[in-house]
Amino acid sequence: MASKGISPTREEDFPAWFQSVVREAEVAELAHVRGSMVIRPWGYAIWELMQAELDREIKASGAQNAYFPLFIPLSYFEAEAKHVEGFAKEMAVVTHHRLEEDPADPEKLRPGGELAEPLIVRPTSETIIGKSFAKWINSYRDLPLMVNQWANVVRWEMRPRVLLRTTEFLWQEGHTAHASEKEARRETEQMLEVYRRFAESFLAMPVITGEKPEEERFPGAVMSLSIEAMMQDGKALQAGTSHYLGQSFAEAAEIDFLDRDGERQLVHTSSWGVSTRLLGALIMSNGDDVGLRLPPTVAPQQVVVIPVMRGKDDEAVRAEVEGLAAELREQSFEGKPVRVLADFRDRDAPAKRWEWTRKGVPLVLEVGPRDLEKEAVAVRRRDDEELGMESVPRGEIGARVGTMLEQMQVGYFDLAAERLASRTARDIESLDEFRQWFSADDEDAAASGFVRAPWSEAAESAAILEDLRVSVRCIPFDQQLAPGSACVLTGKPAAVEAVFGKAY
Amino acid sequence: MASKGISPTREEDFPAWFQSVVREAEVAELAHVRGSMVIRPWGYAIWELMQAELDREIKASGAQNAYFPLFIPLSYFEAEAKHVEGFAKEMAVVTHHRLEEDPADPEKLRPGGELAEPLIVRPTSETIIGKSFAKWINSYRDLPLMVNQWANVVRWEMRPRVLLRTTEFLWQEGHTAHASEKEARRETEQMLEVYRRFAESFLAMPVITGEKPEEERFPGAVMSLSIEAMMQDGKALQAGTSHYLGQSFAEAAEIDFLDRDGERQLVHTSSWGVSTRLLGALIMSNGDDVGLRLPPTVAPQQVVVIPVMRGKDDEAVRAEVEGLAAELREQSFEGKPVRVLADFRDRDAPAKRWEWTRKGVPLVLEVGPRDLEKEAVAVRRRDDEELGMESVPRGEIGARVGTMLEQMQVGYFDLAAERLASRTARDIESLDEFRQWFSADDEDAAASGFVRAPWSEAAESAAILEDLRVSVRCIPFDQQLAPGSACVLTGKPAAVEAVFGKAY
Repeated sequence: MASKGISPTREEDFPAWFQSVVREAEVAELAHVRGSMVIRPWGYAIWELMQAELDREIKASGAQNAYFPLFIPLSYFEAEAKHVEGFAKEMAVVTHHRLEEDPADPEKLRPGGELAEPLIVRPTSETIIGKSFAKWINSYRDLPLMVNQWANVVRWEMRPRVLLRTTEFLWQEGHTAHASEKEARRETEQMLEVYRRFAESFLAMPVITGEKPEEERFPGAVMSLSIEAMMQDGKALQAGTSHYLGQSFAEAAEIDFLDRDGERQLVHTSSWGVSTRLLGALIMSNGDDVGLRLPPTVAPQQVVVIPVMRGKDDEAVRAEVEGLAAELREQSFEGKPVRVLADFRDRDAPAKRWEWTRKGVPLVLEVGPRDLEKEAVAVRRRDDEELGMESVPRGEIGARVGTMLEQMQVGYFDLAAERLASRTARDIESLDEFRQWFSADDEDAAASGFVRAPWSEAAESAAILEDLRVSVRCIPFDQQLAPGSACVLTGKPAAVEAVFGKAY
Repeated sequence: MASKGISPTREEDFPAWFQSVVREAEVAELAHVRGSMVIRPWGYAIWELMQAELDREIKASGAQNAYFPLFIPLSYFEAEAKHVEGFAKEMAVVTHHRLEEDPADPEKLRPGGELAEPLIVRPTSETIIGKSFAKWINSYRDLPLMVNQWANVVRWEMRPRVLLRTTEFLWQEGHTAHASEKEARRETEQMLEVYRRFAESFLAMPVITGEKPEEERFPGAVMSLSIEAMMQDGKALQAGTSHYLGQSFAEAAEIDFLDRDGERQLVHTSSWGVSTRLLGALIMSNGDDVGLRLPPTVAPQQVVVIPVMRGKDDEAVRAEVEGLAAELREQSFEGKPVRVLADFRDRDAPAKRWEWTRKGVPLVLEVGPRDLEKEAVAVRRRDDEELGMESVPRGEIGARVGTMLEQMQVGYFDLAAERLASRTARDIESLDEFRQWFSADDEDAAASGFVRAPWSEAAESAAILEDLRVSVRCIPFDQQLAPGSACVLTGKPAAVEAVFGKAY
């Protein structure tokens, strides 16, 4: 009998449930090198759908894709370290360019050919792209310059977690240079809006948009914006960020231009990115105790049709499955043909049914001899909590597929939006209540969530928050601070309304 | 006055001409780190078009995309070195995972946190993908397993050349595992055929398909196939390869499976790839003394419409350019909407015209007040040697765009095919003639080319060929060896017909 559930369940142990889903749905695995991951075909196909959509949006925003070197000279970081406070240092360092036989043991290899200057494997590309910008930009006519790259980056992780914190991950990083602060800030805001739309419409994952408090900014940034999503355990996951970098990177990389008056000016830069972390967010936002649940937009197969072969009418069943798949491919969802797989692999039908259910496919259809007789198709909707098989008349299925996919896309979003709303406390007024909210046992997934409350931005907040392992997720754009409000942490006059939460 | 030509010309100095085109057309540049390159937006957009087409073909062949780690443990290479002769060793080695302040000089940084086991930046992924295959493959039901990844790879280059030989480059690498030798060989052949079609139909670059002689095989391969193109200087460029790896990689990575009889067997593997080198091939195959010439299939913009503003009727010109661009976007080429840019940048029209001509755009259109009066559009076809501006009646341009693009796609292919045919000597019968052919001054581009002649495969060929800096490019599939032919190099009985050439 095929396994039907994920062990442990979300309620029993959310982090372990997450690891199990990632493994059982064949999304990814930590492998080979500590902290490195393999993104398996199913996971990568989801990432490709995300990429295609986001790439379209990024190009529509006016940015062009390009590719910059993986290796960055050590000296670039020395220049940056001078200009950028809080510069992170956990990076992979290349020091040699050859393998040679170990004279002590000819079965062994060792590094040879030491480099004069060590090279850093990019943790992000502000420094190197900045140096290219400095070369390409001469006058105001060359501005704005907006590039994006899809690339792998490396940040050494001491406590790796698959998809969430890995030494190497994939992402896109946009880098732009502008003549004025105003324009660079507008770009920063526009790209966050691209990410918000993408998360909500495409990933069915509602987010809060806002500005990061000073302590949480990208090192060197003047303003960091983020989209924050709530996972099913009530924790926050930062799902995309956009930074206005002021002129500090321009200064470090010497990116200047002649303005209309013939004066030399430093540019204002921005950067923005999302990563394969979104695969983790998708799972923790929308998975269940059977496995992954994919919004149809990001499902590599939106419909899988499985033949039930009983040694009787096998040829008729095969023909029916092929015909049905072909017919459904002519249906459309969100303006594109429905993605349909007819699964004829050499495995039994129940095993296939549970495999695709676990992998999150929105609709699993089965056709056997009895369905042929009844002129019907057995349909499992992934959003049905009972995971029943409904018998749908053969003549109706084509017309219903598009509608069912739309219902699921909306339904998943609504479910997550309802969670975000109901688990964001807006009535917490004292530090005691605040402590109580966040001191609920981490493993009691139902108890935690966000707090939205007035905040003074006072320095003493840091110690209180650290003690609770809580952070200010953002200062949301839609400020609803009542005049005269007191800070939930310090009782001082509040400066802003903030969203607090525990975070991944 | 905008520069109209590339200096030097192809005839004056082909390698220097190539570097100039790459720079002037803003395709790519060596930058930042010795041997590393930046692929600029125009070059990257061409690469994206190649990727999209090839990705579609690869998926249609049954492979699925995935992603494997950038870093490979040193020990994997030790296992491979035992099994694979001729194992290459020029690789980037990561030995540390942190930057720290240099105590001797706080302005300086130095590597810290030495790794227990050095990590290699992947030069290719047979070893690491093989290890994953070993984990994923249990029974014959799991075969064939076919994955592909789009990734960056690093091979240390002592004499880097932009796009042709760089330390880091982008590629796709396919890796497949099969139950039988026959199936793995068929896969190897099928993928070469995918590459051939891609090179010829999409890149307008005719190629010779064949098998590499033993000395030129990928280390560890039983059979290496390649597509070989002829550049305008008569040299060969290997534009894609496909390898049948036998069971040596399966043995090194321990990839086995239970066959239908319950016996454990090693799989047979294949691998195949093409890289950003194709951007270099495209330029050297089809560029001219003005710059790049892009087959319409790989032109990021197939048509650029330029307004000629004379301070008179500017608004009418602007409206006309916008209307014309919109109208042309409704035309189609190869089943897709024509890609059209209306170039309203703040630069003068001749500068724009020559920029897009240099960048290889198939059709550059201009509209000024006089064109409005005449109800015409000035059209420059990139394949017109005179680069004239033809005045085309406004009412005809829409209907003619698709046809002109088709003519250019075919015309570029025919031109290269004619070169390949006319500069492949088939009548060279003696070693003297062979020496004479290949001893022609390298810089005399018109003199060199390929030789197609009978070959004995005898060991003494190596010294003769090395002396002339010539190699056997391949043993072409379409063998036309006359019975009783003598080897052009040794006079011994010929075993095969071979294609000889100097190579990039």
